[in-house]
Amino acid sequence: MSNEKLVVVGSVAFDSIYTPTGEAPDALGGSATYFSIAASHFSAPALVAVVGEDFGDSNKALLRQHTSSLEGLEVADGKTFRWGGRYHKDMQGRDTLFTELNVFETFKPVLPESYKTARTVFLANIDPVLQEEVLNSFEETDFVACDTMNFWIEGPRREALFSLLKKLDCLIINDEEAELLTGETNPVVAGKKVQELGPKTVVVKKGPHGLLLFHGDELFTMPALPLSEVVDPTGAGDTFAGGFMGYIAHRGEVSSEVLRTAAVAGTLLASFCVEGFGTDRLAAVQSAELRDRFKEFQQVTHVTPDGSFLR
Amino acid sequence: MSNEKLVVVGSVAFDSIYTPTGEAPDALGGSATYFSIAASHFSAPALVAVVGEDFGDSNKALLRQHTSSLEGLEVADGKTFRWGGRYHKDMQGRDTLFTELNVFETFKPVLPESYKTARTVFLANIDPVLQEEVLNSFEETDFVACDTMNFWIEGPRREALFSLLKKLDCLIINDEEAELLTGETNPVVAGKKVQELGPKTVVVKKGPHGLLLFHGDELFTMPALPLSEVVDPTGAGDTFAGGFMGYIAHRGEVSSEVLRTAAVAGTLLASFCVEGFGTDRLAAVQSAELRDRFKEFQQVTHVTPDGSFLR
Repeated sequence: MSNEKLVVVGSVAFDSIYTPTGEAPDALGGSATYFSIAASHFSAPALVAVVGEDFGDSNKALLRQHTSSLEGLEVADGKTFRWGGRYHKDMQGRDTLFTELNVFETFKPVLPESYKTARTVFLANIDPVLQEEVLNSFEETDFVACDTMNFWIEGPRREALFSLLKKLDCLIINDEEAELLTGETNPVVAGKKVQELGPKTVVVKKGPHGLLLFHGDELFTMPALPLSEVVDPTGAGDTFAGGFMGYIAHRGEVSSEVLRTAAVAGTLLASFCVEGFGTDRLAAVQSAELRDRFKEFQQVTHVTPDGSFLR
Repeated sequence: MSNEKLVVVGSVAFDSIYTPTGEAPDALGGSATYFSIAASHFSAPALVAVVGEDFGDSNKALLRQHTSSLEGLEVADGKTFRWGGRYHKDMQGRDTLFTELNVFETFKPVLPESYKTARTVFLANIDPVLQEEVLNSFEETDFVACDTMNFWIEGPRREALFSLLKKLDCLIINDEEAELLTGETNPVVAGKKVQELGPKTVVVKKGPHGLLLFHGDELFTMPALPLSEVVDPTGAGDTFAGGFMGYIAHRGEVSSEVLRTAAVAGTLLASFCVEGFGTDRLAAVQSAELRDRFKEFQQVTHVTPDGSFLR
């Protein structure tokens, strides 16, 4: 039984996505799916999730291709989690059309023995009570990161979430969630307040505007890659987390340099994710394309002055 | 009579600013004021604007300190332009409380002889008809940049604005204005469409999220300096323009390297501007502080990877 370096606990789903320019019914999605495909460029994760009897072999094959183990993929009686959403013209706001939890409703993640020695863990957005339970199953971790959402921040699980935060090394959320969690509209202040709730490292994602990364007393910011066309933003956040955590697991250490590079890795992969519906574009990314996109990122962000321009 | 390198045409005003944390009644403001103070770190501009009889000597002294010439500052019968605004909790949205155009209502900028040989020109946000008239008074320019606002983009001056755009080298606007001008919600697409309207160089400012800079086929993006406290965002855009244009005038050439460095200069100065009410903080900026802030900017934006992190 191999020791897994990186474990992701999250959802696998079928998403029906509608945008102003197209649609993709029943596309393979879910946080653990996007995460794994992105992470696999650096360190394939072992996956914990649940699917229903309707989850076909080709989907399972795609997951297998991007993970180190599917031992934690439970196949339960019933249907796979289904979500439908329609994006607004700005490709940022969206309305949920339907949420059919199906087998996800009673999902209780169980960690296979071989996963328990993993040192790098990502707990995607699920009930914080479950996140804490599964976290307690690991023997000894180096870097545990977590995602969450407004539903848990504002709802009856708020206390459970605050309890979980104390045990985390890193929280990866967007600017709206950071505001909901702290009451601070300024994301720089919000990020620091999240640190006070527990995690030493906080990533505040700002979608097309890039991110803020807090690590101890250090602050880092970077823009997203400017994109002329966004086909479907679904999964961009989980894709970022996958690239970010995959790179950290690959390095096996956490430092300012590792975190900044990990943020670049996540940003590059997220830029591919939004170029196609569902996981279509992301799953097709080749290493050479990723290197080209890094060159592009360097070109559009390269700043020349060394300080001598100031008198 | 000296030949001026840089000329700014805009407003000088008294602003009454109210924020959730404080207020500043009758603070010295106006686009040409913010612009000049910022530009003076690199190349003091010759100013064209109008004030009323109520414009005191101390205010005039402050303008004199940051300009190369006030020959273009008309003192007209009546009161100086007054504006009042109240910022929302997020420090981005704001409501206008009052606008008293006063002497600005009949302002017709006249270019002093000594200004006409300037090669670098900034036309701050005024009626595009006046912008084009004053632009025609210059003998031969190298780099003419312009600002505008929703009032001109959506109103009866839209055609005049489109006529002006054809004669510009650069338009400096925010993301909302770029969308109004082009109908495009994606600022990357909007910026490119603005280029098609005339200016080879376009800056789309995104406030706390940084900016996009378009120059020919080239695209550049950078984040703003993350700030824990914003006291008053008034004038940040004109301050950016001042640092940006001041640096370009100082260099006397336009290239990718010059434009990117100019964007950094503008960003640094804008970060000071918003730390105080009106021009208080901006006018006090010392060279050493500007150098320190550049080091801070380097620290928070420094990205380490050289591509070898990608396999």
